Formats: sequence, structure tokens, C-alpha cells
Amino acid sequence: MKQLEELKQHLAEVNDLDMAGSVLNWDQSTYMPPGGAPARARQLATLARLSFEKFTDPVVGRLLDELRSYEESLPYDSDDASLIRVIRRNYERAIKVPPAFHSELTAHQSRAFQLWIEARPANNFKLVLPALEKTLDYSRRLANYYPGYQHIADPLIDDADYGMKVETVKAVFGQLIEKLVPIVNSITSQEPTDDSCLREYYPEAAQMAFCKDVVKQLGFDYRRGRHDKTYHPFTASFSIGDVRITTRIKENYLGECLYSMIHEAGHAMYEQGVCKDYEGTLLANGTSAGVHESQSRLWENVVGRSRGFWEYFYPKLQSVFPEQLTGVSMDTFYRAVNKVEKSLIRTDADEVTYNLHVMLRFDLELLLLEDKLAVKDLPDAWQAMYKEYFGIYAPDDRDGVLQDSHWYAGIIGGSFQGYTLGNILGAQFYASAIKDFPEIPSEISSGNFAPLLGWLQKNVYQSGSKFTAPELIERVTGGPMTIEPYIHYLVEKYGEIYHLGEYL
Amino acid sequence: MKQLEELKQHLAEVNDLDMAGSVLNWDQSTYMPPGGAPARARQLATLARLSFEKFTDPVVGRLLDELRSYEESLPYDSDDASLIRVIRRNYERAIKVPPAFHSELTAHQSRAFQLWIEARPANNFKLVLPALEKTLDYSRRLANYYPGYQHIADPLIDDADYGMKVETVKAVFGQLIEKLVPIVNSITSQEPTDDSCLREYYPEAAQMAFCKDVVKQLGFDYRRGRHDKTYHPFTASFSIGDVRITTRIKENYLGECLYSMIHEAGHAMYEQGVCKDYEGTLLANGTSAGVHESQSRLWENVVGRSRGFWEYFYPKLQSVFPEQLTGVSMDTFYRAVNKVEKSLIRTDADEVTYNLHVMLRFDLELLLLEDKLAVKDLPDAWQAMYKEYFGIYAPDDRDGVLQDSHWYAGIIGGSFQGYTLGNILGAQFYASAIKDFPEIPSEISSGNFAPLLGWLQKNVYQSGSKFTAPELIERVTGGPMTIEPYIHYLVEKYGEIYHLGEYL
Repeated sequence: MKQLEELKQHLAEVNDLDMAGSVLNWDQSTYMPPGGAPARARQLATLARLSFEKFTDPVVGRLLDELRSYEESLPYDSDDASLIRVIRRNYERAIKVPPAFHSELTAHQSRAFQLWIEARPANNFKLVLPALEKTLDYSRRLANYYPGYQHIADPLIDDADYGMKVETVKAVFGQLIEKLVPIVNSITSQEPTDDSCLREYYPEAAQMAFCKDVVKQLGFDYRRGRHDKTYHPFTASFSIGDVRITTRIKENYLGECLYSMIHEAGHAMYEQGVCKDYEGTLLANGTSAGVHESQSRLWENVVGRSRGFWEYFYPKLQSVFPEQLTGVSMDTFYRAVNKVEKSLIRTDADEVTYNLHVMLRFDLELLLLEDKLAVKDLPDAWQAMYKEYFGIYAPDDRDGVLQDSHWYAGIIGGSFQGYTLGNILGAQFYASAIKDFPEIPSEISSGNFAPLLGWLQKNVYQSGSKFTAPELIERVTGGPMTIEPYIHYLVEKYGEIYHLGEYL
Repeated sequence: MKQLEELKQHLAEVNDLDMAGSVLNWDQSTYMPPGGAPARARQLATLARLSFEKFTDPVVGRLLDELRSYEESLPYDSDDASLIRVIRRNYERAIKVPPAFHSELTAHQSRAFQLWIEARPANNFKLVLPALEKTLDYSRRLANYYPGYQHIADPLIDDADYGMKVETVKAVFGQLIEKLVPIVNSITSQEPTDDSCLREYYPEAAQMAFCKDVVKQLGFDYRRGRHDKTYHPFTASFSIGDVRITTRIKENYLGECLYSMIHEAGHAMYEQGVCKDYEGTLLANGTSAGVHESQSRLWENVVGRSRGFWEYFYPKLQSVFPEQLTGVSMDTFYRAVNKVEKSLIRTDADEVTYNLHVMLRFDLELLLLEDKLAVKDLPDAWQAMYKEYFGIYAPDDRDGVLQDSHWYAGIIGGSFQGYTLGNILGAQFYASAIKDFPEIPSEISSGNFAPLLGWLQKNVYQSGSKFTAPELIERVTGGPMTIEPYIHYLVEKYGEIYHLGEYL
């Protein structure tokens, strides 16, 4: 099809501009000297603008129209039909937003983010309040470019987790919280776990070398990737052949670098595993925030905090850090990496309480969008929710409503649900993998991660963003998203570490 | 002026695309994993094409036309007049080349370079011969898009050293060689200098730390730059606030990293020193290859291999490497870093013989373009020239005609003259600086490089590419380019190390 070739060629340029922007972003976080900042902001804005202009060029719409009958003649899951479908969906979403609104919002977001950079250390919510009120207004206006929604947050959620609706997410989160709260209460009412073995002095170079060995063995391909240090860990993909992770390191806390690396390697293996034929197209990345997070959380928690994983790796870790770990039993270490506690900071939370942090943010987003909560009352609402969910208050807004950048750098709506969807889906995919290959856990115990990676590669990674998250879940697990495997996983795992019996 | 604002805004996008391309190039040489190569080539090609399209957009021509009377009403050296003039010059040069030719040439260059990558280690000139013949053909065709030239190489030289003509360069090179050959012969007929003190084992980390201290003290600003390791050292500028250098290191040769770093820092201080008002415009970089090289060679050789420089730095170096340098006198060390010998590899050559390497390449380029030498006879002509200039033969083409990438990655014509122009101009600028501030050498001996840097900043760096090289030389030194200061410098310096008396 001539038109498809033309469309691919046109969009390859968009992809090249986007990837160039990603390289510039990565460089900004890793190696750019401070003096580079002003010009870099300008360069990134130009690349984003040119990409948006090219993507929303009417020629794309014309080609899509001309391709409609070809698309309809193909099986739904063929590569061509999928590519046309995903381009069409993104194009139709993109052209609904006037370019002037797009630029205005981007400029506002960058100002709001700068204010937050100042406000957070100063514990000064008032400083960002007017900007955040504007952000809420922009978020509503953005949603209203997609009329016909069921809930005003639906179009915003679509941006990160296409096809997920407030209704679905709310229902799932409702079930989850009902099961989760008793587990959290049960665990946190017991004697706190001693994780002091993680808090010895672990020199940076040795930690880094160990973490590299770990993620390499999991399956992160260093010929098609690398790792670097940044303030906030992230994954950046510049092509299927170049997917990079970053990590941060604390010499007095072993968990920081290790679990950041495994988490990001999970994201990265997903991106490295996309079918190579999709290179440079809109199919060449993970399909949604939730499915992406399912992979980072699966590798970080389900694998990386499992007993089997440490049966294999703990002796190796002990030989790297004999002074720190001789005399620390495998069981003590295993309990330390799985310590559960009620805490204030989402990004530091354990895998059990983590969802509470996410769900209360999701609830707050909905209240704001539904006009049931004013932005000025957000700090109090935040505190009330933490009191309700965790029984603790943040001492200040810095570790309260100011802790995450999402609302300050982006929009309000759709920013958080993906984290908990990821926990749910990670367990759901893992359960399906084990159903197909029951030997996966025992292979993990002997350091063989290939059966799991191979299954994920075949069932999740290679399809890139061919299918929406709901479609993919259905295809891979034979049913819709469900919390059962996740709850089963938590109960089984933590029931063995703590005593949960009476709560379930 | 509304039109000037419009023009600036349009060209700021071109600059952003070019700078993004530079970041991608830098990343490719420093940190990119091998798997990133295919997509990176595509991304770079897209950025280059979009930049070229935008720069040659007829709107630029229209705005330039509308700005002509404004330009003419301004003093020649005002910022606005200079910016318009440089844009006009580059625009008029760019639109003479049909876009199709431009793409075709770029694609050919990338194929030719890949062939050279294979051919050099295999010592197989035949492998690249057909491509190199095509390159010569492309080079002639390119030159012929600029009719009215005096010599066919003139338009090609203009690309790197605007305003320099074959006639001028040939005249200067002719004078130079006459003076240089007796000096070279005089030195190389004496006992070879012992540079074994540079060839002890110098651990990488300590070398790197020392080199960083050195270039920092010279004036390279690490808040607006950084250094990294690459196979070939280079300088990359992403804005006036972000100019990076790279270096390579040999643990058994102290000269490698140190002089690469100082050389690149020379280029970088030039770029860091451009007037900040020019940020993002066509004025924001060095004015020509020759003037750029004048700065790298000035800092590397005139400063970095001077007795004064080592009077200050040698005790520090000894304290970093006591095992290697205790007992090595300052004089022995100074002679070692100034060892002159007839050798085969341009990039390893000392500052005296270096020009011979360059001039013979320049001559070969002219012979090829003038159709007096066939590409297939180039290896023999190369050998004959080395025999004539140095009295030595390369054992094979690998270290002969295949040694430099220039002809294989670019065009034939204009690639080499800048290196020797740099040596000449570096000495010429330095002589002018000393005329203004005679205390510069004694300040260098006490580690104070600010007077020299300040002079260069004011006279050379801050004007960016406002003036052509010939204009700049006239303004700074009060006359045209001349070899006298360079010859004077060599005779004075090497006359003190060796005995040159009877040859001059």
C-alpha cells in the first residue's frame, strides 16, 4: 500500500524528533552541565513543537482516510491493521486539542514545575497554589476537548492507560482496598521487621557492580542499553536497540540502588522486547502506564523480593559484602527486603502499602475534577486521607501534598492509577506465566530467569502497543483485569512472613 | 525590526535542530550502546534534513531581502548587521546546492565512511577506491555549484575557512615549507630526544584528575562543560553554556590524555567565550576551522608545551606521580614533551613536523581536484610525498593514505588546510597578545592564565563568527596572516632545545 508507506515515512520523522527529544532529556538528567539548562529547555520545546505539528499535519488524516478500507480488509491483529489503528487513535486524539492550547499548557506546566521545585523544599504550598488551580482548570478544559465521556477523568486516563475508565478503575480499587486494609493492619500491628542489615555501609562501586550483574542475569541487554546514575531513576528508550535505565544509590541503604535498577530493568526489558519490525513506529513501545508498571513491579517485587531470587543471589551478595552480611541469615535478609510499614512517602513504600498511597491520590484527583474539593483545601484533604488510610499525618506539606511532581509538572487526572494497575497486572501476568510453565519459580531459585522472560517476551513484550491494555489482558490471561492473583500473591507471600490468618 | 525578529525566530529552530543533532552525535561517540547505531543514523539524518529544509526555506530569502536596507544602514561590525550578513552568506551558499544533491552526497559519505571503517584495519585501499572516486566526482560537482571561482578548491575551502583561497594558502604554505624544512632537518639530524619519562605506567584515574585540574586552571569552565572519554577526542558545543570536550587516555603514555585535553579545551574555551547575546544564532561559534585550530594549538603547544607552563605544573605533576618522575629533571621532561621526529601519523606528530603532514595532504587534494592525479594513483603519490618530505615510507596504506577519515567521510578539498593555518594563526595571535601584555609569559610561569585568556576572550572569542577569518586577523593583529610569528616562535623555542644556528 503506497499510502501506508507514505504514512510510515511521514511518521518516522515524528518518531525521530521524539527520540531526539528523549536523548536530550536523558542527557539533561545524566550528564548535562548546569550551564546547559536554558538552551536545553528551548531545544526540547522546539523538538516537541515540530513533532506535534508534523503528527497533526492534515496529510496524516488524508492518508488514514484512504487507508480505511485496507485496514478493514485485514485481520484485527495484523501488523498493518494494528499500526493504522494506533496511528488513527492517536491522531484523532491529538487533533482534538487546538495547537494554541497545547503550547499554552506546555508553557504553564513548565512554569508550575519550576514553582514546585522551589515550593517543595520551602514547604510552601501557597507558592504553587495559584498555578495548581490553573492546572486544574487546564485539566478540565483538556478533558472537555473529548466530549461524550462518562467521567471527566476518562479522557485524561486515556492518555496514560488507554481504554481504562474511572468506572472500571474505581470498581477494581474498591475491591482491592477492601482486601488490602486488613492485610496492612494485620502486618503493621505486629513487631516491626528489623532491616538494619540493609543499612550497613555498602560502597557504591561494589553495589553498582552487583546490581549490574543482577539485571544482566534477569535479561536486561547491555548491548542494547546501559545504566547511569540520576537523581530520580527512570527508563528512556531511543529505539528498540537502545533502551537505557538510570538508578540512584545510597551507600547506607542497600535497597535503593538494587530495587531501582531491577524496577527500571523491568520497564526496559519490556521496551527491548518489542518486535523489531515495529522499530521507529507507534507500535514500538509499551502499551500503557499500567502494563508498563506491571513489568517493573513484577521484576522488582514478584521476582526480586521473592525467596527463590534470594536463594540464588544471597550467597553471591554475601561474598561481595562479607563484612556486612556474614552472620545475617537468609531469612533475616529476606524479611528485611520485604519489610512492610505505614509510611509517608509513596516512592519509598513497600509493595503492600504502596497501593494505598496511589489510591488516595487517585481519589483526590477525582474529587478535584468533580469540583467536590477546592485546590486550596487539598493539603487538608491529603492529611485527612493519610490519617484515614495509614493512621499517620505528614509533619508538613513537603512530605504531604508536595511530595510528588505529577500534578505540578503535568495535569490533574490520570497520573497515578497506573502504579496500582501495575501491581495488579504484574501478579495477574505472573500467575498466567506460572500456569503455562509451573517450573518458573524453581528456575528462578537456580538463577534461570529465561523461562519467565521468554514467556513475557512472547505474550506481552513483542506486541508493543498493538493492543490496548484491556485487549492485551484478555488475550494473555483469558479474562479481564482481576485483583485475585494479586491478593493471592500477597496473602501467600506475607502469610508466610507474618501471621495473617485471622484477618482474611 | 519585525523581519529580523521573524528571521531570528525561524533560525532559532534551525539552531535547535542542529544542536539536537550535536547532542545525538556526542552521545553516539560517548555512551550509546552498540545496538543504538541503526536508529541513531536515521535520527541524525532526519534532524539534518529538517534543519536544511528550514534553513533553505524561501521565507529566509524574502526576509533577507526585506532586511537589506536595514543592514546597510548599520555599522559593519554591529551585531545586527553581522548576523544578517552571516545568515545571508550561509543562506546563499546553501541554496546553491540542490537538496537532492545534498541528500545524495550525505548518503554516499555515510557509505564511504563505512567502507573506510573496514578498509583501514584490513589495509585494503582497493575496497574504498570506487567510493573515493565517486567522492572526488561529488567534490567537483559540489564546487561547480559555485561558479566563478578562481580555483576549483576555493568553494570547498570556503566551507571550513571562509574567505581563504587556494592562492593565499598556497603562497603561505610555500613560504612556510621553505623555512620549516631546514628546521626539521636540523633537529632530526641530531641525537633523538629521550622521552621515556612519558612512557612509564601512569594510572588512568590519576592522569584524568591531573588533566582536569590543568584545563580548569587554563580556564575551561566545568559549569558550562564537561569531559568524557572517546576513541577520537573532539569538542562539541550544544550552546554557549554547554561545551564539552572528550579525550583518550593511554596508561603507558602521559602525553596522550594531557595534550588531547588541552587541545580540545582550547577549542572549547573559544566556544565558551562567545558573547552570550549570540546564543542560538549563527554567530555563536568559532569563525573558521583555521581560527578554531589556532586556539587548540595555541593552548596545546604555545602554552602547554612551554617552559613556563611546566615550571608551574611540573612540581605538581611530580607530586601526583612521584614514582614515575622523581629524579626526572624539569629539563628532561620539557625536552620529552617537545620531542621532534619524522613520523608517519599526522595526529601523533609534534608541532614542528605536523605541518608537513598537513601540507602534503593539501597538495594531494589540489592534484586530485585539478585532475593531475588519479584516485587509483593516490597511494603511490602519498608514499612519494612522504619520501620527499620525511625521507620515510609507510609500511602499508593503513598508516599511509588510509590513516585519516577526512576524505572518506567528507569531500576532497578544504579538509586539511585549517590545521596548519591554525599553527600559523595561533602564534600570530599569541604574538599580538604579548605585545599588549608582555607579562603574559611570566604570569603563565606562575600559573596565572587569566591575562592570556582575557585577551583572547576580548579579541577573538567574544566576536564568535561575526568576522571572517581574514577580517578577524586584520582586526586583531593589525595585518594579514603571516608566518613570521610562527617561525620566530619555532626558532626561538627549538633553538634553545636543539642547535639550529647554521640552518637559519
